[in-house]
Amino acid sequence: MVKVKDFEWIPGMTVKELVEAYRGIGYQSIELRKAADVIVKMKKDNSKIFLTFTSNMVTSGLRGFFSQIIKLGMCDIIVTTVGGIEEDIMKASGEQFSVGTFEADSVELHEKGINKVGNIFIKNESYMKFENQMNELLLKLYEKQKRWAVSDLLKEIGLTLNDEQSILFQAAKNNVPIFCPAITDGAFGFHLYLFQQDHKDFIVDVVKDFGNILYCTTHDEKKGIIALGGSISKHHALLSTLLNGGANYAVYLTTAHKTSGSMSGATTEEAKSWGKVKDESDIATVIGDVTITFPLTMIAAMEQLKEEKLLKSIEKEKTEEKLNEKKDLNKLKKLAKS
Amino acid sequence: MVKVKDFEWIPGMTVKELVEAYRGIGYQSIELRKAADVIVKMKKDNSKIFLTFTSNMVTSGLRGFFSQIIKLGMCDIIVTTVGGIEEDIMKASGEQFSVGTFEADSVELHEKGINKVGNIFIKNESYMKFENQMNELLLKLYEKQKRWAVSDLLKEIGLTLNDEQSILFQAAKNNVPIFCPAITDGAFGFHLYLFQQDHKDFIVDVVKDFGNILYCTTHDEKKGIIALGGSISKHHALLSTLLNGGANYAVYLTTAHKTSGSMSGATTEEAKSWGKVKDESDIATVIGDVTITFPLTMIAAMEQLKEEKLLKSIEKEKTEEKLNEKKDLNKLKKLAKS
Amino acid sequence: MVKVKDFEWIPGMTVKELVEAYRGIGYQSIELRKAADVIVKMKKDNSKIFLTFTSNMVTSGLRGFFSQIIKLGMCDIIVTTVGGIEEDIMKASGEQFSVGTFEADSVELHEKGINKVGNIFIKNESYMKFENQMNELLLKLYEKQKRWAVSDLLKEIGLTLNDEQSILFQAAKNNVPIFCPAITDGAFGFHLYLFQQDHKDFIVDVVKDFGNILYCTTHDEKKGIIALGGSISKHHALLSTLLNGGANYAVYLTTAHKTSGSMSGATTEEAKSWGKVKDESDIATVIGDVTITFPLTMIAAMEQLKEEKLLKSIEKEKTEEKLNEKKDLNKLKKLAKS
Amino acid sequence: MVKVKDFEWIPGMTVKELVEAYRGIGYQSIELRKAADVIVKMKKDNSKIFLTFTSNMVTSGLRGFFSQIIKLGMCDIIVTTVGGIEEDIMKASGEQFSVGTFEADSVELHEKGINKVGNIFIKNESYMKFENQMNELLLKLYEKQKRWAVSDLLKEIGLTLNDEQSILFQAAKNNVPIFCPAITDGAFGFHLYLFQQDHKDFIVDVVKDFGNILYCTTHDEKKGIIALGGSISKHHALLSTLLNGGANYAVYLTTAHKTSGSMSGATTEEAKSWGKVKDESDIATVIGDVTITFPLTMIAAMEQLKEEKLLKSIEKEKTEEKLNEKKDLNKLKKLAKS
Repeated sequence: MVKVKDFEWIPGMTVKELVEAYRGIGYQSIELRKAADVIVKMKKDNSKIFLTFTSNMVTSGLRGFFSQIIKLGMCDIIVTTVGGIEEDIMKASGEQFSVGTFEADSVELHEKGINKVGNIFIKNESYMKFENQMNELLLKLYEKQKRWAVSDLLKEIGLTLNDEQSILFQAAKNNVPIFCPAITDGAFGFHLYLFQQDHKDFIVDVVKDFGNILYCTTHDEKKGIIALGGSISKHHALLSTLLNGGANYAVYLTTAHKTSGSMSGATTEEAKSWGKVKDESDIATVIGDVTITFPLTMIAAMEQLKEEKLLKSIEKEKTEEKLNEKKDLNKLKKLAKS
Repeated sequence: MVKVKDFEWIPGMTVKELVEAYRGIGYQSIELRKAADVIVKMKKDNSKIFLTFTSNMVTSGLRGFFSQIIKLGMCDIIVTTVGGIEEDIMKASGEQFSVGTFEADSVELHEKGINKVGNIFIKNESYMKFENQMNELLLKLYEKQKRWAVSDLLKEIGLTLNDEQSILFQAAKNNVPIFCPAITDGAFGFHLYLFQQDHKDFIVDVVKDFGNILYCTTHDEKKGIIALGGSISKHHALLSTLLNGGANYAVYLTTAHKTSGSMSGATTEEAKSWGKVKDESDIATVIGDVTITFPLTMIAAMEQLKEEKLLKSIEKEKTEEKLNEKKDLNKLKKLAKS
Repeated sequence: MVKVKDFEWIPGMTVKELVEAYRGIGYQSIELRKAADVIVKMKKDNSKIFLTFTSNMVTSGLRGFFSQIIKLGMCDIIVTTVGGIEEDIMKASGEQFSVGTFEADSVELHEKGINKVGNIFIKNESYMKFENQMNELLLKLYEKQKRWAVSDLLKEIGLTLNDEQSILFQAAKNNVPIFCPAITDGAFGFHLYLFQQDHKDFIVDVVKDFGNILYCTTHDEKKGIIALGGSISKHHALLSTLLNGGANYAVYLTTAHKTSGSMSGATTEEAKSWGKVKDESDIATVIGDVTITFPLTMIAAMEQLKEEKLLKSIEKEKTEEKLNEKKDLNKLKKLAKS
Repeated sequence: MVKVKDFEWIPGMTVKELVEAYRGIGYQSIELRKAADVIVKMKKDNSKIFLTFTSNMVTSGLRGFFSQIIKLGMCDIIVTTVGGIEEDIMKASGEQFSVGTFEADSVELHEKGINKVGNIFIKNESYMKFENQMNELLLKLYEKQKRWAVSDLLKEIGLTLNDEQSILFQAAKNNVPIFCPAITDGAFGFHLYLFQQDHKDFIVDVVKDFGNILYCTTHDEKKGIIALGGSISKHHALLSTLLNGGANYAVYLTTAHKTSGSMSGATTEEAKSWGKVKDESDIATVIGDVTITFPLTMIAAMEQLKEEKLLKSIEKEKTEEKLNEKKDLNKLKKLAKS
């Protein structure tokens, strides 16, 4: 049996070392370490990996991390909510969101044309620019065909974006489908509606897309789920694996608890009763804010996979370049101090 | 300023009296009392009322309460997730769910064909019967027309159900549209998909339904929102009122906190920054499990509205009958003790 | 197996009827109903009942309810934190706390001499009056004896208060000891310290009080625990029953979850591993704000015990008087409407 | 205004770099970054630093980290609950706790003599050994003097322990007082009681200890608080700084929310209304499990302080030795792979 181990900081400690130490600390740190292990396992086992997240995570700086994860081949299917798609497009066109505070006065913000998502602020202008983009985009799509499955439509949009850090761009480029079962639940939906008013034969076919997610994986393939937060993104991935015999691996990172019977709080353990994850599967549920826990978990997993050469080659030049930059910086710092 | 007031139980106390006492107790009880007040106000102000809930609440016994609320004219528009629609249909065909425990072993349950939602159990059979129903239903719908907006489709289904306690039935009967922006995210979606395989021109038009929810209310009408839990049901109602100038009243009952920037945890206060609720609006957020808090809040509001004769006439005979039953029971009890 | 049952409001519904309906609703409402059942059982089984709460609950209007519970013989031992004792004394001298909001600006409040506990406000003056009282009280106690066990000291104070709604008063009058293992953790502690400066032989003997709580119950007696919130009040009651062979019944009402290994979140289930509650014991954990859940749970239990004549006689005149008042009020209301 | 910044993993990333990136991610990661900043500031400002934690954190591997923090001069005063003191002593005598699971059956564990704290297991034997130690310890203390303030008593015990990773040992060695306002609320209390039965003049003077914590700091000194979790440990530190004019800096890491008015959930913002932290103070509240968040926050702060040579010299040889070990290990790993 693993023993609880006194944690000690070593200066210069890496994220990998800290998450390894979590194994012997306690409570959610133990679960987080387990989650990293499960992700390593699902990858080693050649699983098709579903990554699900909600729109507030795309509002945050995790957006760039998601696109990096796609680039590194760490996920095969994405499920998200439409807000995340909108904001990925906004950011791809250069819009920037600001760090604010939870306590900021909402009425004052509203008067300034600022929208609050927790402690992140989004300007109304960002939404207005998005509006203009959408009209053009939809016209191009419509010229190509009249009836679109959601994931096909999102891929097409992704290809038009020119931003390495965009989720839609990386997904399109790396053949990772993005599913969004409630595509109309946002500004995106409003623009689809306006467009349809002038183009009655324009159809967004959500039913067809059900087939697309269904045939992303097969009964025989190993399947893994990494679900961040709850909502329909989590549920849709689970449903899809369920219909294909259940997932073999599942990691949930969430702030919700199982005590209210909600989807957000439903644990990996509960999913077994549904056949949503297989009985013998490797599972972990970590309670905590994903802006903290997801980088930790994923970095720990990817560092290990990289060591074992199981990670899609990182664009080498870029990484080395960055590392060199860092070294140079360190050199400069040292010089500055001497 | 209202003073904190020592609470004292009076034998035979009614729910109305307890929730009135909450005004002077503290913390979430104060917020709950405020929520009841806001509901009374939105009704008195002739607001169009959006009621939103997630599927786990339909799994629970709140389902009958929701249909009663529709019947009593306490909501004008419903937004929910598809699981709730499925389960409402199952229950309308006589399926029953059981009270279990949170701790029940999920693997054992799975082997017995039982699915767990918190401490509620659903048999696989219930899903299988639903499957059979769906085929028939969809065929009838298809014969009528090929292209369906979601809320129209749900109304049509509601009319076929013969259960006074069904949400879909009461909604259809009382002209309360039900919106479900992710109609494919459940067994329902799978059946739609299977059906479309044989009927390629069958279309579920989610874009058209955006227009339906948009035109449910106008800029000039007063609008109120009662949002239970989070997810797209809450978000979709907020979006719809936002596009019509914002809600005037908003009550959120949820277990989530605003600290993680999630939709479930977003407060009524935060909604103001978006113009989702108007700045001057009356708002309340109550943290707690809705199976406990919603009956309390809603009963307190409805008792008061009833007193002021602002509640759609309750089927009088039925109520009186029940009250008489109760009295008889009390009489019998008293006799038994004497 | 109990079935989930469609909930339906009946106008005039009592708290007892609502909590009975909770049995078939779901999630925490089911647990709340179970908690009421466990309390009824512990009482019927003649258990010694520990009631524990934290100081913020005495800040709230639950204070009067706690004293009523003592008066009705529904608890035999109390464990709390010192803030609750201070505020009970303040309220007994006529101080009143106000209902505020969670969002009120703390800096502004501080400037006005107002202290915030969630959405309840306490004036600095209330603390200052308390100071004056304490000096006098401690001198009287000191004249009686030099070395005091905490619970003896609190009983003595209770007898000096003249307020039917005071916890300390009712506890003293009804021989219910109040334990407070961290008696110095508040303004009370500061005054004890100041007093000791001038009276070096004045001793508050916490060790001796350990014996007092230990001998409150025996191995052979049935023991029950009703723990509201967490902290040392919950832990101390558990510890005391543990040393006497474990509790037979346990009900926890809390907002905390077990996932962080905290005392507040530790469940009744976990307590079994410690022998803190007996393996075969009847237990229930309800997640939610006690200002909402405790009145519901306790009223449901007491209504049933009253019906079965197992409740210490309520001062009959008073109750009847109140009931008559209510009836008169109803009459007047009816007249007013006719 | 700081912008939200796309996060990108760089292989080999250090904890310092990750926590720096948190500044631009969102939600609680932003708050965590702020908390690290506040800790750096309080140290640079020569504040007296209060570190408070609850016993479950000593159960965990954070115990070693706490003692390292004392050794590095990062805290001046400790406040904790008695369970943590007991378990620190147990671990100092070689007892080991195990990593288990939250789901483990409590009744089975009880039969095996295992106690569960979340997902950490403690054997009954560990408690029995502690019992034997206590008798001896108390006799020695009694021989020295009859009346003990709690912090003096804990210092004396600390000096007898011979474990570099013990909190009590490091605290005693580094003149960091440990306060424990509810010293009897645990096995420790039981042993004090048994001892007093045979030594009636043995007194644990909690009132005197109030003076000790009061005079730890002065009005004029800068004061900082790092509070992990809630309970009396947090409250006692706040009370003590309040009486000395309020803290200048405050960092709370907790899983509790302010919505129920509890001490655990009370925010740094609310503390301002009490004068518990000064109005102009630098404050941060981070919601999350401290086993994850505290190492991150504290490492980030200490790395920066180390860089600026503001950290008490780490025993150099030891660190270098460890670093060399690590390098050797890496060499061996590389060889093994080649």
